Amino acid sequence: MLKLRFLPLLTLLFCQNSQAELRATGDLGVVIERAKGSALIINTSKRSILAKIDSLGDLSHASVVFSRDQRYAFIFGRDGGLSKIDLLQDKVEKRIIQAGNSIGGAISQDGQLIAVSNYTPGGVKIFSTKTLQLVADIPAEYGENKLSKVVGLVDAPNHQFVFTLFDAGEIWVVNIKNPKTIDIKKYKNIGNQPYDALLTPDGRYYIAGLFGEQGLALLDLWNPEKGIKRILPDYGKDDEKLPVYKMPHLEGWAVAGDFMLIPAIGQHEVLVIDKRQWTLVKRIPVIGQPVFVMARPDGRHIWVNFAFPDNQNIQIIDAKTMAIVKSLTPGKAVLHMEFTPRGEEVWVSVRDENQLIVYDTESFKEKKRLPAEKPSGIFFSSRAHQLGL
Amino acid sequence: MLKLRFLPLLTLLFCQNSQAELRATGDLGVVIERAKGSALIINTSKRSILAKIDSLGDLSHASVVFSRDQRYAFIFGRDGGLSKIDLLQDKVEKRIIQAGNSIGGAISQDGQLIAVSNYTPGGVKIFSTKTLQLVADIPAEYGENKLSKVVGLVDAPNHQFVFTLFDAGEIWVVNIKNPKTIDIKKYKNIGNQPYDALLTPDGRYYIAGLFGEQGLALLDLWNPEKGIKRILPDYGKDDEKLPVYKMPHLEGWAVAGDFMLIPAIGQHEVLVIDKRQWTLVKRIPVIGQPVFVMARPDGRHIWVNFAFPDNQNIQIIDAKTMAIVKSLTPGKAVLHMEFTPRGEEVWVSVRDENQLIVYDTESFKEKKRLPAEKPSGIFFSSRAHQLGL
Repeated sequence: MLKLRFLPLLTLLFCQNSQAELRATGDLGVVIERAKGSALIINTSKRSILAKIDSLGDLSHASVVFSRDQRYAFIFGRDGGLSKIDLLQDKVEKRIIQAGNSIGGAISQDGQLIAVSNYTPGGVKIFSTKTLQLVADIPAEYGENKLSKVVGLVDAPNHQFVFTLFDAGEIWVVNIKNPKTIDIKKYKNIGNQPYDALLTPDGRYYIAGLFGEQGLALLDLWNPEKGIKRILPDYGKDDEKLPVYKMPHLEGWAVAGDFMLIPAIGQHEVLVIDKRQWTLVKRIPVIGQPVFVMARPDGRHIWVNFAFPDNQNIQIIDAKTMAIVKSLTPGKAVLHMEFTPRGEEVWVSVRDENQLIVYDTESFKEKKRLPAEKPSGIFFSSRAHQLGL
Repeated sequence: MLKLRFLPLLTLLFCQNSQAELRATGDLGVVIERAKGSALIINTSKRSILAKIDSLGDLSHASVVFSRDQRYAFIFGRDGGLSKIDLLQDKVEKRIIQAGNSIGGAISQDGQLIAVSNYTPGGVKIFSTKTLQLVADIPAEYGENKLSKVVGLVDAPNHQFVFTLFDAGEIWVVNIKNPKTIDIKKYKNIGNQPYDALLTPDGRYYIAGLFGEQGLALLDLWNPEKGIKRILPDYGKDDEKLPVYKMPHLEGWAVAGDFMLIPAIGQHEVLVIDKRQWTLVKRIPVIGQPVFVMARPDGRHIWVNFAFPDNQNIQIIDAKTMAIVKSLTPGKAVLHMEFTPRGEEVWVSVRDENQLIVYDTESFKEKKRLPAEKPSGIFFSSRAHQLGL
């Protein structure tokens, strides 16, 4: 009886921690600290850092996807590491080294499978999101038993993964509805050295950029039988122009209404493309070589960051006038930007200032600064609900 | 010392419940049970019912919005009740009766404020999402101190709420960035008896349907100075046609690429509108009077349900051909449909069968049935991240 009298108190004391842990996952995010191989778990409502996760390996070119319940973040490291982070318990749930050198990944539409695109050995490996057990291994074979680097891996509707073979110049569409009998459609001769690709937000158009020649390779997933179409023949690296300090990220292309805004390679321009005919309708002069060209979720504003030596800047384009409405200088080495789900704020990583800066997207005023060690990519949990990210 | 030996065991025992409660919020949803005034909390990954919440008042015309962290669901009841449900603890956090008769609500872009549109007294009340304390009261005054019923309340970018005055024939745009000095823009003479409205997913176009005359009232929030534009002059109730069994929900209109699919009123047709010129481009014959016309998140398929006496049916339109590709008969009184965030499945409420049915949207096969008492509206937590819902 004596013991029982104390139970409520003891329970309170010892349960407090797990009570304090009661946490929703709709407003969480992960920030990559590239130099330290660590990641921060952040909260976009409180604009705060909740936890730091260490020992994640080489994150010099890392990306993140989220489980469909938003509890887990999957971090793809440059060293082939695949780490599953529990956002409710601030810990590494599981970590594997699945290849020698990997470049990114995607999560299937139903959240059951996670795919990683690898440089060495060249190919795609598919894992169970629950256990990280290998479900399928797809070597990117071409020519005489050669393996190609794989880039531009995305998830698409109807249980598909789509990716591009850099060395082979091919696009493969994989249907993984039944992982035991994987169906692969291969599109060959898409162009020279496709270096990256994107999927439009509606999941319909897959577009690969070409490093070895000009133009872009377009696959319409609504009409796959029509094969690859070459668009924007004048787009791409032109050796007579400026040296290219950094190839832009295609994932950072912006779709705003009927238009797509994309970074011109090696030039101080953002290009406006009419999505209906895939024609160039305008060139917007900007302060440097654009890297990410990202639309606010409502499509009204497009935020642009730049390659060295102009990477202390951000410029904002108004989709109504297709002109710059604001220029900001957050600080040295602005690497990435991520909008809150409904777009009222944007988080910016400023690597060489060791800062995260949160801006109000209507007034462009700074709302908060947070410390981070050499921050690079910022990824919010709302990505769990979007196609092709 | 003796007591201390037992602490771990006791802690385990008494903390177990809160441990078991560790739950992410990205794949949750709320289903309204209209007859019983109750709601189910469901999980779309496990396709399961997690909890039932009772005593929520009159839910005969209920709708739901979610906090930006997805922890809380706010249920708007017909009786003026506003209930805040904790999705992590399966309980009513707080419940108030804020008016005599209310029709729906919205949550602000930043998640700080919740707005309710009321019939009696006619107007909009704005509350803190945290406390449900009244922040602002906006009576819908017109003419000689008359109050109008308010319909079509939505959240819009840049801290705005937009709504329509049924009796006054006006659209009001409210900026609540500073709740103490609320700025209201009023657009008068928009048309006779606007009965409902919608915001396009990009947050740009607000469109009100008219019960008293034909055509629709369009407000372009990118160009508010241009005022109201009347579009689709032939659209609306035509007394020579079939009797109207149920006015369609405008929130259920589908935007797919450049096109908008909308239910024809009192006719067995879905209308296809070119969003660029707001012109009618096609009439698709369907089995009954359409109620909800909803696009799968990727826009490839559009699912349609119907008014009595055809409400046992669902038909699915392919956006590529704008023709029906599949017809389903889930059972008596199909009231609502909600797609999973990336669209691989859809949940359907079948009121008179007391069933929820989950379909695979690629194969159209039934995947799961769950019991529910007279289910009506289905709302998933991913709505927290979308504009105008």
